[in-house]
Amino acid sequence: MLVFPAVARSEHPDQRRVDPRLEVRERRRGKRPGDAYVRIVRPFEDAFQRGEEGGELIATERTVLDRRGWTSTLRRLRTWLIGRPIHTGQEEHERLTKVKGLAIFSSDNISSSAYGPEEIMRVLAAAGAGALTLTLPLAALITVMLAIVTLSYRQTIRAYPHGASSYIVASDNLGSTMGVLAAAALLIGYVVTVAVSVSAGVAALTSIVPELYPERVLIGIAVVVLLMLGNLRGIRESGTIFMVPTYAYIGIMLSIIAYGVVRTALGTVPPFQAPAAWEGIEQGGQALGLFLILRAFSQGAVALTGVEAVSDGVPAFKPPEWKNARTTLTWAAIVFAILFVGIAYLVTAVGIQPDPTEQQTVLSLLVRQLTGDGVILVVAQLATALILALAANTSFADFPRLSSFLARDGYLPRQFAFRGERLAFTTGIVALSLMAIGLLYFFEASVSGLIPLYTLGVFIAFTLSQSGMLWRWWRRREPGWHTGLVINGLGAATTLVVAFVVGGSNFFQGSWLVIALVPLLMALLMGIHGHYREMARALELDRIPAAAEVAAEPIVIVPIARLDRPALQAIAFANSISSEAVAVHVTNDPATAESLRERWPEWAGTTELVVVESPYRALIGPLLAYMDALQRQAPDRPILVVLAEFVPRHWWENLLHNQTALRLKLRLFARRNTIVADVPYHPLRPPGA
Amino acid sequence: MLVFPAVARSEHPDQRRVDPRLEVRERRRGKRPGDAYVRIVRPFEDAFQRGEEGGELIATERTVLDRRGWTSTLRRLRTWLIGRPIHTGQEEHERLTKVKGLAIFSSDNISSSAYGPEEIMRVLAAAGAGALTLTLPLAALITVMLAIVTLSYRQTIRAYPHGASSYIVASDNLGSTMGVLAAAALLIGYVVTVAVSVSAGVAALTSIVPELYPERVLIGIAVVVLLMLGNLRGIRESGTIFMVPTYAYIGIMLSIIAYGVVRTALGTVPPFQAPAAWEGIEQGGQALGLFLILRAFSQGAVALTGVEAVSDGVPAFKPPEWKNARTTLTWAAIVFAILFVGIAYLVTAVGIQPDPTEQQTVLSLLVRQLTGDGVILVVAQLATALILALAANTSFADFPRLSSFLARDGYLPRQFAFRGERLAFTTGIVALSLMAIGLLYFFEASVSGLIPLYTLGVFIAFTLSQSGMLWRWWRRREPGWHTGLVINGLGAATTLVVAFVVGGSNFFQGSWLVIALVPLLMALLMGIHGHYREMARALELDRIPAAAEVAAEPIVIVPIARLDRPALQAIAFANSISSEAVAVHVTNDPATAESLRERWPEWAGTTELVVVESPYRALIGPLLAYMDALQRQAPDRPILVVLAEFVPRHWWENLLHNQTALRLKLRLFARRNTIVADVPYHPLRPPGA
Repeated sequence: MLVFPAVARSEHPDQRRVDPRLEVRERRRGKRPGDAYVRIVRPFEDAFQRGEEGGELIATERTVLDRRGWTSTLRRLRTWLIGRPIHTGQEEHERLTKVKGLAIFSSDNISSSAYGPEEIMRVLAAAGAGALTLTLPLAALITVMLAIVTLSYRQTIRAYPHGASSYIVASDNLGSTMGVLAAAALLIGYVVTVAVSVSAGVAALTSIVPELYPERVLIGIAVVVLLMLGNLRGIRESGTIFMVPTYAYIGIMLSIIAYGVVRTALGTVPPFQAPAAWEGIEQGGQALGLFLILRAFSQGAVALTGVEAVSDGVPAFKPPEWKNARTTLTWAAIVFAILFVGIAYLVTAVGIQPDPTEQQTVLSLLVRQLTGDGVILVVAQLATALILALAANTSFADFPRLSSFLARDGYLPRQFAFRGERLAFTTGIVALSLMAIGLLYFFEASVSGLIPLYTLGVFIAFTLSQSGMLWRWWRRREPGWHTGLVINGLGAATTLVVAFVVGGSNFFQGSWLVIALVPLLMALLMGIHGHYREMARALELDRIPAAAEVAAEPIVIVPIARLDRPALQAIAFANSISSEAVAVHVTNDPATAESLRERWPEWAGTTELVVVESPYRALIGPLLAYMDALQRQAPDRPILVVLAEFVPRHWWENLLHNQTALRLKLRLFARRNTIVADVPYHPLRPPGA
Repeated sequence: MLVFPAVARSEHPDQRRVDPRLEVRERRRGKRPGDAYVRIVRPFEDAFQRGEEGGELIATERTVLDRRGWTSTLRRLRTWLIGRPIHTGQEEHERLTKVKGLAIFSSDNISSSAYGPEEIMRVLAAAGAGALTLTLPLAALITVMLAIVTLSYRQTIRAYPHGASSYIVASDNLGSTMGVLAAAALLIGYVVTVAVSVSAGVAALTSIVPELYPERVLIGIAVVVLLMLGNLRGIRESGTIFMVPTYAYIGIMLSIIAYGVVRTALGTVPPFQAPAAWEGIEQGGQALGLFLILRAFSQGAVALTGVEAVSDGVPAFKPPEWKNARTTLTWAAIVFAILFVGIAYLVTAVGIQPDPTEQQTVLSLLVRQLTGDGVILVVAQLATALILALAANTSFADFPRLSSFLARDGYLPRQFAFRGERLAFTTGIVALSLMAIGLLYFFEASVSGLIPLYTLGVFIAFTLSQSGMLWRWWRRREPGWHTGLVINGLGAATTLVVAFVVGGSNFFQGSWLVIALVPLLMALLMGIHGHYREMARALELDRIPAAAEVAAEPIVIVPIARLDRPALQAIAFANSISSEAVAVHVTNDPATAESLRERWPEWAGTTELVVVESPYRALIGPLLAYMDALQRQAPDRPILVVLAEFVPRHWWENLLHNQTALRLKLRLFARRNTIVADVPYHPLRPPGA
């Protein structure tokens, strides 16, 4: 049966106006046309509510959930994975205390104490075990730098209480190009944060369960997928449960450091013996030159990378937001400094050497040396793994937020600004996960391999943020601008120097990749921006005279391949909107054209049929040429091409149908003044609504 | 500027009827509507000719060649690669003499003498050099089998003078399932023919230029691509140039064999010494059991694989076709037998051993031993490479022809029956090339590796063809049926036994793959056939009452995301075909909806705007729910969804636009009673035809 009921145009029985403000009218059909209707008013069938002004319709959850066919399976899977859709009005805005803020935003920074000392030692070990004594001085130097950066950011947070992301600070003060540079550096940094934190977390686990070591990449990818699903579900940043890993880690590490300091003072710690398995692995041999020390410093500078997170999160604190955020930042820096220097001191004092096979972390070796293979080791490693997962999670908040800012400003595709069913920035979360998984895969979840990618981007962002502040003080000359100038000047100078040191000393270890990627990413962002701006200018209405309400009547043609139900349905539709629709049959076989013409009056009645023979067997070219000729007769009128399409029951059946229609559509899409209407025919299904 | 000119519906100035039988009217526009027109009749502008009856238009070459934009670049590339389109009427039907027929159709068969003896020897060598004396007896046995098969096929050719493909013979006599089995076996055989012949041809080349050996896969792929382009261009099978490789090969090989026989009779050939490089490569060691001999026989049976080609080509011979084809087949078998047995005799007499590194062919070793490293060797190897390329080319005729038969009968997608611009079956040629390239790649162009895939399929087809003939004799009892029964019975029995021997002895070497692939391919062919048959039943008209000429007037809705030029253009089009078109704005932001509503009257005039708020932020779900509600009000009327689409200038810009429209279209395609019209907007280009 044809799906579209047949109605002769002249005697259309029911010129009723369907529509909006949708009272749903249930129509009981009589036996003959013109019979009585029964209308039952059912307000919107649960799909819509009426808006307050009565004019608009408000969609209910049912419009999102109620799907049929294969989409309902996808829907069920989706609901199972990430939960039911959340109403925009249900967004929670819990504000954080300083205690919670420290737990959530500082996890990134504090957790780097778990791998920072080790990364310094790995570089120094290249010059032999003796060079490891430099670990403590380097850690102390990095702590001084952290103090400078923290002081600087305290200024920034005060100046930008609504969010002090480097992108915003740099855009605001140094112009959009610098803003885009900061954004590019930050985006890369966030991706690497996830990869590094997850790799370090997995390393903490494999240190106590070495059997998992060969599967570390797979485990890391699984962790990223879990974080992705959790964030698509819309983890609330405020959950008290997030406090546990951070404070557990701080508590356990402080205790271990205290215990270790006492025992080393008493001289009761047995000196570290490298396991037999490490022998034969070449480690020493390089000279302890300035370059090696700079590289060790660069690797350790990763410790500063979490500072940006607190600045991003300023608006999430309880009022006064900027004050609470500042205090939290300061406390985080102090806690980090104690852990970082404490661990660096103990590993030097006990004589720990980094595992050349990367199977055990330095931290696990230290804890094992101090407390043995007992429950304390297990608890410490689990706490480390958890805080590192939380640190990775910080990027799952920051990356999508930054990319939504960028999309809002037209630097990224609009999808990045669209909040999904659970109010999360779906596109950003998925993009971050995929790129982090790529890094994990290519770097085989090696922290040492990833760090050179990490630090440079972060320090570029730092430098831009501080320079922005410097310029802001100078321009505005607000009260206290002298002090501000000094602090941010020192911050900018320090971070700039570190950026050069990091970029230079690690160039061949990986920072070349960042140096190459940042300009490419900038070009991409600015290219997208230019495109959107140009399109907005081209499409906007204000520069044209009052627009058309009604276009010229279209010329309607219906290309048909054979005389079947889809073709007849398309012709019926064409006749319903035009009194002069023409069917066009392009053929390479005059015989089939002849048989079509013979059967034509029986099925298609008075509709005109144009036969175009194509002795070169092409179908699309002659059709386009025919359209060109029509167009020349009536240049004012658009051409409406009505295509009969057959909707198969399974996707693979599309390979057996519609190939020509698809190619034709691609070509027509590029033709000016042309509209394509798809009239799908659904075989083997009962018709009706 | 809007592309569609504005015309108020009621005062349409020019209700002229555009159309067919296309007198192109050049319209000179006056300053105001209603001004005079000047019409210049230009018959079809070279794009069309008038048909003889005057009713149809006949497209000229210009409709195929005349393209603009990026398609013109593709077109130029295509014309450069495969030439200008050929008119259907220009097809050439040159008939072949026996001399030419032998050259063209027997190249596949005769060329297998170049690698057949070697493949026997490679298996025997596993039992040590002494086992190689079995080469000659096995070659003689295979020649006897060839005689039986040739006699059988002489019957088949007489019975099926219009083409004696196993697919046709088996379908005709044993039913469609057996026909499909034969087709599946043949399709696989044709693909492997290309891979084997090209590999052997490349091996002939690398035997004299060993430096090319590491690049053999690449060279093989290049040869396949050349053959593909040549066949897309439409190589005429009749070209006299095709005679050269076959007769050159026959002539050179016969001379060498004669020379070799004389010299071995005189005892002047130095005994073969295996080069030092072969030492240390384990070869012997296996016992010379029955299984090994059967495997050697199976590998050698490849020699029979070209017989089908002559049968396929019967209609191409000069009349009386079947007589000439039979004679050609007989002569080909005789020539092949002399070459095959001759080479097998000489390699045994001279004591040639196969190169375990596969770098030199046995044939090149033999020629080198007889004539030295001179010009004769080079000429012989070049002739071998050329005839093997010609043998591969045979499949480029057979595979597309068979797949066009299958497509015509509904077993393959219709594209396989469509003849491209050069009258070649484009889809079949490309499919064959891709599969052959895949085989070359995975088997690293190794003839020995490919042969086990080859022989089984061919012998399945032989068996079915002979069994079909057997059944035909029995059923028809035409004059001479007793003799026919005996000959084809012997043929069927022999080929069946060989099929089992080949399938069994090579099972683990590769025939398992064919045994697995044949049923899969059959299932695919029959699944496609079932689908087409079912669809034809569902779509055909004869089983429905007289069809609709005019459908019910559609409900027209225009989903709009924002108020810009594409949206206005879509609304203007909607208004031109319906007096009650409604614009629908689904939004997750009430503020933008409000601003849209404010600007609405200025730009969109009296067109109704429906705002649907979506607090779950989904766009597609609420729109579909709205359509459902509309549909319930008027179940008889189809819904026409008019989509404004923006046509970017570069393909990659599509990533930044139209994503939602694309997803919406996919969903609407599956919705019954729904028509989608794309109204493309082309920015930054001048309007007009």
